Amino acid sequence: MAVVTLEELARRFGGQVRGDGSREIRGVATLADAGPHDAAFVANPQFHRYLATTRAAAVILGEEDVRHFSGNALIVDNPHLCFARVAALLHPEPPWEAGVHPSATVADGAQVAQTAWIGPHSVVEQGAVVEDGVFIGPGSFIDRGAVIGAGSRLVARVTVCRGCIVGKRCIIHPGAVIGSDGFGYARDGVRWVKVPQLGRAVLGDDVDIGSNTTIDRGALGDTLIADGVKLDNLIQIAHNVQIGEHTAMAAFVGVAGSVVIGKRCTFGGRAGIAGHLEIADDVHVTGTSLVSGSITKPGVYSSAISSEEAGSWRKNAARLRQLDALVRRVRELEHKVQMLIEGEKLD
Amino acid sequence: MAVVTLEELARRFGGQVRGDGSREIRGVATLADAGPHDAAFVANPQFHRYLATTRAAAVILGEEDVRHFSGNALIVDNPHLCFARVAALLHPEPPWEAGVHPSATVADGAQVAQTAWIGPHSVVEQGAVVEDGVFIGPGSFIDRGAVIGAGSRLVARVTVCRGCIVGKRCIIHPGAVIGSDGFGYARDGVRWVKVPQLGRAVLGDDVDIGSNTTIDRGALGDTLIADGVKLDNLIQIAHNVQIGEHTAMAAFVGVAGSVVIGKRCTFGGRAGIAGHLEIADDVHVTGTSLVSGSITKPGVYSSAISSEEAGSWRKNAARLRQLDALVRRVRELEHKVQMLIEGEKLD
Amino acid sequence: MAVVTLEELARRFGGQVRGDGSREIRGVATLADAGPHDAAFVANPQFHRYLATTRAAAVILGEEDVRHFSGNALIVDNPHLCFARVAALLHPEPPWEAGVHPSATVADGAQVAQTAWIGPHSVVEQGAVVEDGVFIGPGSFIDRGAVIGAGSRLVARVTVCRGCIVGKRCIIHPGAVIGSDGFGYARDGVRWVKVPQLGRAVLGDDVDIGSNTTIDRGALGDTLIADGVKLDNLIQIAHNVQIGEHTAMAAFVGVAGSVVIGKRCTFGGRAGIAGHLEIADDVHVTGTSLVSGSITKPGVYSSAISSEEAGSWRKNAARLRQLDALVRRVRELEHKVQMLIEGEKLD
Repeated sequence: MAVVTLEELARRFGGQVRGDGSREIRGVATLADAGPHDAAFVANPQFHRYLATTRAAAVILGEEDVRHFSGNALIVDNPHLCFARVAALLHPEPPWEAGVHPSATVADGAQVAQTAWIGPHSVVEQGAVVEDGVFIGPGSFIDRGAVIGAGSRLVARVTVCRGCIVGKRCIIHPGAVIGSDGFGYARDGVRWVKVPQLGRAVLGDDVDIGSNTTIDRGALGDTLIADGVKLDNLIQIAHNVQIGEHTAMAAFVGVAGSVVIGKRCTFGGRAGIAGHLEIADDVHVTGTSLVSGSITKPGVYSSAISSEEAGSWRKNAARLRQLDALVRRVRELEHKVQMLIEGEKLD
Repeated sequence: MAVVTLEELARRFGGQVRGDGSREIRGVATLADAGPHDAAFVANPQFHRYLATTRAAAVILGEEDVRHFSGNALIVDNPHLCFARVAALLHPEPPWEAGVHPSATVADGAQVAQTAWIGPHSVVEQGAVVEDGVFIGPGSFIDRGAVIGAGSRLVARVTVCRGCIVGKRCIIHPGAVIGSDGFGYARDGVRWVKVPQLGRAVLGDDVDIGSNTTIDRGALGDTLIADGVKLDNLIQIAHNVQIGEHTAMAAFVGVAGSVVIGKRCTFGGRAGIAGHLEIADDVHVTGTSLVSGSITKPGVYSSAISSEEAGSWRKNAARLRQLDALVRRVRELEHKVQMLIEGEKLD
Repeated sequence: MAVVTLEELARRFGGQVRGDGSREIRGVATLADAGPHDAAFVANPQFHRYLATTRAAAVILGEEDVRHFSGNALIVDNPHLCFARVAALLHPEPPWEAGVHPSATVADGAQVAQTAWIGPHSVVEQGAVVEDGVFIGPGSFIDRGAVIGAGSRLVARVTVCRGCIVGKRCIIHPGAVIGSDGFGYARDGVRWVKVPQLGRAVLGDDVDIGSNTTIDRGALGDTLIADGVKLDNLIQIAHNVQIGEHTAMAAFVGVAGSVVIGKRCTFGGRAGIAGHLEIADDVHVTGTSLVSGSITKPGVYSSAISSEEAGSWRKNAARLRQLDALVRRVRELEHKVQMLIEGEKLD
């Protein structure tokens, strides 16, 4: 188990120590749960109330919070970020050895780095490349010609389809599917005829993909997920979508075909984007909102409706279907009232 | 194949036999499809029309329905519940033998009960515990230190991540992922830095999890799913969510991080709950509704909008974006009309 | 690599050659990316701008587009359909050999055609039938008594549950689950008691199922997906749903239990259909819309709301919760104005 002192944390991650810099820290926890060897953090005033009673060895906090706490502290600009780094230091992934599990199936002509791990019952097909330090968890499938970049971690049961590319230091969670066919069909009378999906899905570096998320390959040309993109669970990215650097999406976001999304955007859970749109950099779409036209300006966009007690909601929802008629009634009223007013004046 | 008489069913599950109690029953079916050895049931008056012509050996029904039927009957308080029990008796899961399939990978230091089954190509890592009578279907992955409680059934291709707990008599369907990392990132300028997800996902007893549903582990502290919770397919439960006993959720429900949900709640398909909210016991949220504030009282809540013919909908939806302006127009009209009325009176 | 001439394409797929019919074609590409051995196509006037500069060997286009292009052309009625066929001809699935991978587990009493392929770490249980020319990719699970029809392709990690039927020439993408239990419970006081799900999921011929899509088996009787149905990724089809021929659904569509959907319908992404409804043939539901009543007439239906800038949306959404009250205010105004008008007249 890793042990560091508070001073050592300050040396590694910056910040100013207040109190006992030699205090040993072995883990991280919430303010409420922390024991005498845990570091905790405060990034939100609502947690100040726990500061008086926390047993934490030290608390990571900002200059503005320090007056609320009298114990050992590491004072930093961004407590959440510092906490993330301390947590990663003290709670590393469990160690693993390089090699190929005897139950794995690695085809002749696959290139697997000696420093990589291919887990039990995983399959690496011919022409696939697994770079240095890659961890491929159990039950995964790396199809022909796919590339898994150095240092990436496929937790378990991940599928990377033919010829698709995963960048360096990516994390892909169980059940994710990278590069299955896009939903492309031509009509032949009443029948649908499949349009072969010939592009790839290409993920940049430091991309994280959540559990059971699906990213389709391009129809012609590639689906492109840029460096630093973070996708939560159960997201659908359709064929030929492009997502810019450091954009993040919460669960159930759906992006239809050929959408181009800018950099540093965020999409709340269940946001949807209709096909063939362009979304500018620094656009933020709130959860459950539908984007059905291109967005050219940074900003926050929404169409989410909050629930209320069902009885009153039902009345309001019914009125929604009369809204156009209501507007016409108001217009008529405005006309009549104007007539009345002018009649008064005329009198 | 199991065979029971109508009398035997009454003995086991309660209720009053009418007609031939010695009638043999070998299976269950709908009223329309039942053959002469099947039991059927009625729990809804809309199915009375099938009673005249059903060939069922016996019908399970309530006191209020019995006058609509002249054949063999088992009269009970809750026909649907009785039917569920009869069906389970007559259509048990196919038998399986305990043991470890030769293709499975069980690590040294995993504890697998002698009465458990580890299916083909499944992986049980070191420190994992598989209790008595557990069935682990093919292609599943039980990571280090995870516990699968007695009598649970993982149908196939289930992932239980490191250290996570599944209670007793749970049923987990294919593709479900229990305890993958929550979606937690700190900002470092434009970049996202992963916050290690150090808690667990802990499921109580008698919890059912649908296909491809994902339940994230806690960031710090655990995600908690209480006894008797039933989750349908393709549901997302984010980190540190707590769900109370006997709450049920239909497909596509999404629960954002740190939400606390009470007991005996129901959530219709595609309901969504925004992060950090509290939902009281006995709350029912209709399908497709978004909960964006805490709910403190039992009741039914909704924000779902039903579709209509697209042309008229488009007009109404366009008006929705003018609604605030419309309210101001109406206020102006009210003012003017009041002036006119008072002017009249003044005359 | 396949090579054909433009004339050969016309012979196979119909259409009229203009220009050099002996031109060799080896692949397909977009107009922008095509090299001198690629065929491209135009099915939409917005792409006319690329015609002047494309390097394509030939362009597949309609009579109405031909005047915009001076190069080699294949003039057809349906360019998208012709392109799909040309692409399939020139980019076939990579060849595979029949047989059973040594790591696969095929039970005694499973019937596997000699022309089928069972991929690594796949499991075929007893009584299952795998017909001629079927491709079962790695990590798949065909449970007892299931049938995979001739020529079907299960890409990887597909689950077909006990007794379920997949028709001929189906394509099922990774992570899809065919025939897991429907979400059926009876109440026993506050507890939920599972209702055994005894029906099957039955897919017709030429059905495509997207990645991580889930199709539940029937409770009693079967879930039925007719010939030619195409389902995108992450779709949920509940127990006892019936979907008519050639209906197509985009990602995240959710269909609740016992819904009957007609032929040739389309459902945009995230459309939802509440339980026990009937949807006529030739119904089209736009993305994100909720169908909460049966639809008896062909047509387009919607309840989707587009996002706008969050500040103005918030005002409009707040007004939505006052809509019923607003309608009553307008009615009151109408009454008062009518009184005023009649008062005028009476004067």
